[in-house]
Amino acid sequence: MNTDIPKLASDAQRAARTCAVLSTDQKNTLLTDLAGRLFDETASILRANELDCTDAEKNGITPAKLKRLVLTDLAVSQMCDGLRQIATLPDPLDSVTRDEILPTGLRVTKRRAPLGVIAMIYEARPAVTIDAFALCFKAGNACILKGGREAKHSNDRLAAIAHETLRARDLPEAALTLFTSSDREDIRTLLAQNKHIDLVIPRGGEALIRFVHENSTIPTIQHFQGVCHIYVDAQADQAKALEICVTAKTSAPATCNSAECILVDSAIAPEFLPKLAERYNDAGVEMRAGACAQPLMPGAIQATQEDWGHEFLDTIIAVKVVDGLEGAIAHIERYTSSHTEVIVTEDRTAATEFTDRVQSSCVLVNASTRFNDGYQLGLGAEIGISTSRIHAYGPMGLEELTTQRYVVWGDGQTR
Amino acid sequence: MNTDIPKLASDAQRAARTCAVLSTDQKNTLLTDLAGRLFDETASILRANELDCTDAEKNGITPAKLKRLVLTDLAVSQMCDGLRQIATLPDPLDSVTRDEILPTGLRVTKRRAPLGVIAMIYEARPAVTIDAFALCFKAGNACILKGGREAKHSNDRLAAIAHETLRARDLPEAALTLFTSSDREDIRTLLAQNKHIDLVIPRGGEALIRFVHENSTIPTIQHFQGVCHIYVDAQADQAKALEICVTAKTSAPATCNSAECILVDSAIAPEFLPKLAERYNDAGVEMRAGACAQPLMPGAIQATQEDWGHEFLDTIIAVKVVDGLEGAIAHIERYTSSHTEVIVTEDRTAATEFTDRVQSSCVLVNASTRFNDGYQLGLGAEIGISTSRIHAYGPMGLEELTTQRYVVWGDGQTR
Repeated sequence: MNTDIPKLASDAQRAARTCAVLSTDQKNTLLTDLAGRLFDETASILRANELDCTDAEKNGITPAKLKRLVLTDLAVSQMCDGLRQIATLPDPLDSVTRDEILPTGLRVTKRRAPLGVIAMIYEARPAVTIDAFALCFKAGNACILKGGREAKHSNDRLAAIAHETLRARDLPEAALTLFTSSDREDIRTLLAQNKHIDLVIPRGGEALIRFVHENSTIPTIQHFQGVCHIYVDAQADQAKALEICVTAKTSAPATCNSAECILVDSAIAPEFLPKLAERYNDAGVEMRAGACAQPLMPGAIQATQEDWGHEFLDTIIAVKVVDGLEGAIAHIERYTSSHTEVIVTEDRTAATEFTDRVQSSCVLVNASTRFNDGYQLGLGAEIGISTSRIHAYGPMGLEELTTQRYVVWGDGQTR
Repeated sequence: MNTDIPKLASDAQRAARTCAVLSTDQKNTLLTDLAGRLFDETASILRANELDCTDAEKNGITPAKLKRLVLTDLAVSQMCDGLRQIATLPDPLDSVTRDEILPTGLRVTKRRAPLGVIAMIYEARPAVTIDAFALCFKAGNACILKGGREAKHSNDRLAAIAHETLRARDLPEAALTLFTSSDREDIRTLLAQNKHIDLVIPRGGEALIRFVHENSTIPTIQHFQGVCHIYVDAQADQAKALEICVTAKTSAPATCNSAECILVDSAIAPEFLPKLAERYNDAGVEMRAGACAQPLMPGAIQATQEDWGHEFLDTIIAVKVVDGLEGAIAHIERYTSSHTEVIVTEDRTAATEFTDRVQSSCVLVNASTRFNDGYQLGLGAEIGISTSRIHAYGPMGLEELTTQRYVVWGDGQTR
C-alpha cells in the first residue's frame, strides 16, 4: 500500500532529476541488465502471474481480460527482447531541434528534455509495466505505474526485479514507482500531485479515462477509443478495397486500430457490397448495414443509430452507403474518434482532398487502418496512441515522452 | 451575453474546419484586410476604449491595470503592424516534419495540423484580442476569446471589426468568438465543452489560472508566473554580471521574464555584493537579502522565507549567497517556477553543468532573463510563455498552436 502519496510523488520527482542527466550508455546498460535479470527470473515471474490468474478466474474474469493478464515463457522472453530493442533506439535527448545565432549575438538552441514524472494508469497487462518503465526511463523520465488490480502479484514481482536492477547500478529505485492502491480516493490524491507529476497517461476503458480526465489537475494525454472508418471511393481498386476492408476488421478485431465502419460510395455500392458481404460472411464477421446497404449485403442485419461511431472491438462491422467524398467526410466528422481513417481510391485528387480535410491522428490512402501503430510507422516502440491533439497526436514513441526547452548562450547581452 | 454555450462551441468547431483548409494567401489577405480596417476605425475603437477606461476608473482600477487597458492612436497602429507582421511569417501548416518510405512500401509523412478550437482567457488588454485571433487564425485554428470584463466595450468593437472583415471575404465569423460572460458558472460550462474545444490557454492572475486548471475538462497550457533566478558564479565576469543583474530587474519589472532573485557564489560575495547594492540603490530597487548577503549590501533589508520563490513584479529583488553551483541549483530546484534561469560565468564546464541540470523552459548563459520572449528568440510572435512541460514549454509561437498528424500513402497494403 502507498500510504504517503505526496511523498511517493516527490520521491519520483527527485529520481526524475537523476534520470534526466544520465548518459545514453547508463540508460542502455540498465535496460539490458534488466532484460537479463527478467529472463533469469522467468520462473518466479510466472509463479506470481499464476497467483493473479487463479484469483482472477475465481472472480469470474472475462476470457479477453484473462488473455491479457496471462504471462508465458514466450511473453517474458518477448518482454526481454523489447527491452533490448529500446536500448538500441536513439536517445531522444540527444537531439537539438534548433541551433541559430541571432543578430543580438545570442546562440539560441532548442533541446529535447524529459517531461519529468509520468504517471500511467492502465489495464491488467503485466508486460505494459516493463514496457512503460523502459520507454519513460530511456527518455529520461521517472514513472509511477498503476496497473489493473488483477495483475497485482505479477506487477509486484516485475517491479521488485526492476528495483534490484536499479539498485545494482546505484540508480534511484524511485525511477519506477508501483502505485498499488486501486482505491478511487487514493487515485484522486495521486491526480492532485501536480507539483511533482508532469503528465498522466490513462489507457484502458472509457470509464477509467473519463475518471482520470475529470479528476486530474495534471495534464493528461488520452489514449481513447478508435472508431476507425474506411471509405471506399467510386474510383477505388475494388480488389484492394476488399482486402483492406477484410483484414482491417479480422486481423485483430479487439485492437483500437481495427476498422469499425465501412463507408461505400453510392456509385459503386451495388457492385461492391455483395462482394464485401461474401468475404465478411466467409470470415464470420457480423454486418450491421444502413438502410441502403442492407439489401445489397446478404446476411447483414439492419444497423441502428447506436452502431455509427461505435467501437465494437469484436468481429462486428457497420456498413453505410454515402454520397461520394462529401458524404464520407460528413459521416466521419460526426462520428470519428480522431484515431484513424482510410480512403481507398485510385483518384489522387480525391485522396488529397480526403487527407487534407479529415484531420484524424493518422489518415491513410489505400492501406489498412491497422498501420496506425508505433512499430508500423517506424517509431521503434510506442507507449500508446494519443487521440488528444495536444502534445502528441497518434502513436507516442520516445520523442513524444519528451519536451523541448531553450538553452541560450550569450556574452553579456542585456535587455 | 452568450446564452447557448454548447452551440457557440460547436459553431467554433465548424468554423475551425474551414480555417484548417484555407490557403496561406487567404489567411494573409484576411490579416492585412483586418489591419487596414482597424486603422480606418481607430476613432471608433478609441471611443469604445474610453467608455471602458471611464467605467474602470469609477470602479477604482489600479494604475497598473489601467495602463494595460488604455488604447491610444499609437497602440492601434501597433496592433495593425502586428497583424501585417504575422501575415509575413511562414505558414506553420506548410511544414512536413517527416517523409519516409518504409520497407512495407508505405510512404509515411508527418504534417503540421491546426489544433482546432483554442479558448483563451486573459486579462483586460484589448490588444491581446487582435493578437491572439491573428496567431490562432494564421495557424488554421478558430478561437474563443474571453478578455477581462473591464475591456468589454473595446473587445466588442474590435471583434465587430474582425467579423465584418471575415464576412467580406466569405469566411465564417465564428473563426473569432468573443465570450462575453464573466459569470463563473458560464465559464465552467465553457470549460466543459471538451467535444468542441481542443485547448484552453489561461493567462493572467494566479487565481484565474488555478480556477481554469481545476475546472477544465479540456487540456490547458498554463502561462504561469516567472520566478526567474540569476546565479553569479565565482568565475563570472563581474562587470557583465552587474549589467545583467541590473537590467534584468529594472528594464521592465512587471513582466514575467524579469529577474526576481539573484544567487551569488559565496567565494565572490564580499567583492560582488557591495557593487551590486550600489547599482540597485542608484536604480531605486528594493533589496531583500538573506542573512549572509545583507551585511554586504548597504540599504538591503532582511529577506523573509516568503521572499524566496516570490514573483515581485516590481522593483524589488531577493538576493542570497549560495555555496557554489550546487547551492544555486538546490535553491532553484526548490523555488523555480520553471520559467527562466541564468548563470553568469566564464567557466564553460560550470555553464554546461548548469544548463544540463536546470530544466527550466529557457536557461541562459551570460545573458538577461528578459531574452526569454518569442520575439527575442526569433519566433516572430508569441501568444505567451508556457510554464507547463506538455505540448509547448517556453514562448508559444505559431508552431506551438499546431499539432502534428500522420498522412500515409499506400498501394493496397493490408495487415
